[in-house]
Amino acid sequence: MAYNLLKGKRGIITGALNENSIAWKVAEKAHEEGATFVLTNAPVAMRMGEMDALAEKTNSKIIPADATSIDDLTNLFTESQEILGGKIDFVLHSIGMSINMRKSIPYTESNHEFFMKGIDISALSFHKMLSVAKKLDAISEWGSVVALTYMAAQRTYPFYTDMADIKAMLESIARSFGYHYGLEKKVRINTVSQSPTKTTAGTGIKGFGDFFEYANAIAPLGNADAESCADYCITLFSDLTRMVTMQNLFHDGGYSSTGVSIDVMKKLGE
Amino acid sequence: MAYNLLKGKRGIITGALNENSIAWKVAEKAHEEGATFVLTNAPVAMRMGEMDALAEKTNSKIIPADATSIDDLTNLFTESQEILGGKIDFVLHSIGMSINMRKSIPYTESNHEFFMKGIDISALSFHKMLSVAKKLDAISEWGSVVALTYMAAQRTYPFYTDMADIKAMLESIARSFGYHYGLEKKVRINTVSQSPTKTTAGTGIKGFGDFFEYANAIAPLGNADAESCADYCITLFSDLTRMVTMQNLFHDGGYSSTGVSIDVMKKLGE
Amino acid sequence: MAYNLLKGKRGIITGALNENSIAWKVAEKAHEEGATFVLTNAPVAMRMGEMDALAEKTNSKIIPADATSIDDLTNLFTESQEILGGKIDFVLHSIGMSINMRKSIPYTESNHEFFMKGIDISALSFHKMLSVAKKLDAISEWGSVVALTYMAAQRTYPFYTDMADIKAMLESIARSFGYHYGLEKKVRINTVSQSPTKTTAGTGIKGFGDFFEYANAIAPLGNADAESCADYCITLFSDLTRMVTMQNLFHDGGYSSTGVSIDVMKKLGE
Amino acid sequence: MAYNLLKGKRGIITGALNENSIAWKVAEKAHEEGATFVLTNAPVAMRMGEMDALAEKTNSKIIPADATSIDDLTNLFTESQEILGGKIDFVLHSIGMSINMRKSIPYTESNHEFFMKGIDISALSFHKMLSVAKKLDAISEWGSVVALTYMAAQRTYPFYTDMADIKAMLESIARSFGYHYGLEKKVRINTVSQSPTKTTAGTGIKGFGDFFEYANAIAPLGNADAESCADYCITLFSDLTRMVTMQNLFHDGGYSSTGVSIDVMKKLGE
Repeated sequence: MAYNLLKGKRGIITGALNENSIAWKVAEKAHEEGATFVLTNAPVAMRMGEMDALAEKTNSKIIPADATSIDDLTNLFTESQEILGGKIDFVLHSIGMSINMRKSIPYTESNHEFFMKGIDISALSFHKMLSVAKKLDAISEWGSVVALTYMAAQRTYPFYTDMADIKAMLESIARSFGYHYGLEKKVRINTVSQSPTKTTAGTGIKGFGDFFEYANAIAPLGNADAESCADYCITLFSDLTRMVTMQNLFHDGGYSSTGVSIDVMKKLGE
Repeated sequence: MAYNLLKGKRGIITGALNENSIAWKVAEKAHEEGATFVLTNAPVAMRMGEMDALAEKTNSKIIPADATSIDDLTNLFTESQEILGGKIDFVLHSIGMSINMRKSIPYTESNHEFFMKGIDISALSFHKMLSVAKKLDAISEWGSVVALTYMAAQRTYPFYTDMADIKAMLESIARSFGYHYGLEKKVRINTVSQSPTKTTAGTGIKGFGDFFEYANAIAPLGNADAESCADYCITLFSDLTRMVTMQNLFHDGGYSSTGVSIDVMKKLGE
Repeated sequence: MAYNLLKGKRGIITGALNENSIAWKVAEKAHEEGATFVLTNAPVAMRMGEMDALAEKTNSKIIPADATSIDDLTNLFTESQEILGGKIDFVLHSIGMSINMRKSIPYTESNHEFFMKGIDISALSFHKMLSVAKKLDAISEWGSVVALTYMAAQRTYPFYTDMADIKAMLESIARSFGYHYGLEKKVRINTVSQSPTKTTAGTGIKGFGDFFEYANAIAPLGNADAESCADYCITLFSDLTRMVTMQNLFHDGGYSSTGVSIDVMKKLGE
Repeated sequence: MAYNLLKGKRGIITGALNENSIAWKVAEKAHEEGATFVLTNAPVAMRMGEMDALAEKTNSKIIPADATSIDDLTNLFTESQEILGGKIDFVLHSIGMSINMRKSIPYTESNHEFFMKGIDISALSFHKMLSVAKKLDAISEWGSVVALTYMAAQRTYPFYTDMADIKAMLESIARSFGYHYGLEKKVRINTVSQSPTKTTAGTGIKGFGDFFEYANAIAPLGNADAESCADYCITLFSDLTRMVTMQNLFHDGGYSSTGVSIDVMKKLGE
């Protein structure tokens, strides 16, 4: 069911690797809700993905961009405005990569070059996007920017390694930039802290399966899936949430506010 | 502009005293978005208010109810289902009163009977409503309940006196009940922590005017008004936020995440 | 090992039911650290307890007091100053009781009279103590007040029922009163959010044993015990923490900042 | 007054630039409390500082170390153990530098190379220190590590620019590393979030003076100074806080829990 919540709005959506991606679902929903948008991803990620099918389905153009490159981001925002015919109303940042996690390097032995690379790709990329957008004055007044994050920024999950610290920085960038961009251009910036989700990135984490079930057993509504996360992002891109900014918003079926569930206590008691 | 976000949904809205009330705006928006609902308020509050006009405008029935009375609440949920023709999909709790604040009694000298009365009216009423609703199985699956609160629950505002502690309890009740009701019936329960708002309740607080301006000067987007708060509540009542529960959600133009603003620093530097 | 951290300080310690009580350990440590103090408890609780032995061991007087009674509290602070020979330097609030929990009434069906009784005993008693103390000007400048609380105030633990909401109010009272008392008399007020502890109160909670083990398996240092909690309280009563106020301080072996532990994941994976 | 709280303990203290430094006060207090320790700073910072006088006063050795260099840190922990005659019991991380802030570059235009340099020096240095220490098994069981931070990690202070995001990462590293090091070696890791302080680093921030007064007018106890912060750190290094770990602890006279003060409202109302 669609509501025309984003009718006439123009967006940029990063990170739609394949149909399991949250960004993919956001693109589908945004299309249903009347938005037009540009899809983007890193050239290397695009080779693995199936973004062409999504572009066709949502009648979108694709602009490859390395989110750590100011030049690529400048091109992305400049071309997107040309293609879409005006300033950008919403942006989804769904970019994250940790080489330390991929290589299963224990957190306490993190390689610091990999750590810095992870910061650049997963957190500073957000600052760079916003910095370029602001310089180009590319986002319209009351535009809405959302970055996806995870609760490891608040509590430790051993398997999440250096991405925990990187997400903490990402959430801080949302607050810091949200202040300035809000003051000057009424642009609002939030992060959505999503349940563990069966995306390609998620399932690639060692021990993800067990943890997915644990979180699912804690949350009274169960884990939120990619589709419901996309629904939520749509509300944040809409005009109905104009005064929400600089927030980290948990979209997790109640997990974050549950200390322990009856279900988990039973399982452990067995 | 309306989106049919609440088409076919049935609700109960408390606290619509007059056209400055947040609840009043929620009723107007919910009506525009296709919902039908019952309006309710305490008999004593209704005498002061102009709820009849709202009822007419939104084609709603009014059921007076003292929110501290289990009997009244039982009648409210029973009759509402009859009038609306089915289970309730959304509830707004906008009920708060502190005799200590009204009488300008300094916090440290709070009268403890007044304090208990304030707790009963402003916090336990929420537990009572939910308790009655659950017992009657009056809220539909994935129904959404929102209570309005204020950030004094996290940080001290001297003029807010005992309501700070009462709101802290209200927010906790949302989490506690949200766990159980979510687990059993998928009902989600959240609180919205709203900017200082020029309602009858707000402007009745001593020193409200000065504080309103201070908060407005801190928040990069300025204070959120009653209308935008109503918009936000609509998104929380809609099907697009199904996995958000047990959260305290700041709707405040970024105030809660701003330590100090350039604007306030300038004013103090003069 | 003792350091004379509280040499010459005068205190009031509530809630020392028996040698498993945190308050009991606080009294022992405070004595070792050079403090003199009065012990107090509700008359009914004293009949069950073994406070006389503690009084003898620590060379303390006992003053029975119902913490919900302004008269009793006035007597407590007045007599304590006489006995100890001056203003009070530190106070421990360790008072909590939920009839709903004791009677194993499910949270959603809480009896509201019991709920109110629990609030009065476990949260308002804190406001009453501070209110009486301030009126009598009974606490010395830079005096330190600590109340014991539990993390259910932030996250739901099903078995903790209405005490979760009551502890949320208790923590808020610490902030609210801490502002005013700090401003006027430099008195600081904090809450210590302690691990599940094998006290009489703790072990009386249904399902406590299983939960104790769960928390122990999450916290990297394991659950904090009553004795280490007493050590921590001593530091908060000392002159070395003078600028810490209005805080909720987790004393829990890292539990509160751990999302999940390797240990729990292993147990669930079995 | 001294208590022998750190009698026999061995430490490493970074960042004691001059007598206004918090680290300088920590060194003085730690010495008074019976500890022996090594002082360290970056070679470049040492040229500006007066650390020799502190070393003499506290009978300490100085080991220069660039905190971004694994080699230097390895040397620091190795030599320190030799000099002090055993494993290290406490570490103070007081290292922070933002080129963007120094050059008064507006946050939204942050130079990203400077940003990365700031991260490496001010946040990753903490991970590197801990990583080296753990690899060398250089910290004793129940050892205590404290890093100094600032509340800009939670709320935006426009003048704090990229250090806000960097401190958010620093605090996350404390949690992440605290989990692993706690589990394996009982080492506890916390951050102390300190009031604005008149150190060389603090007063170098543009607009610091005005902000210092603002924070001072909000906090009911006023801003915490360097000396009281040192007192607090001593308690965290002592054996009395053994079960406190992975926490961010506000040492700020109540600032963090105060929404607005009567004092600031008056000033703005004038």
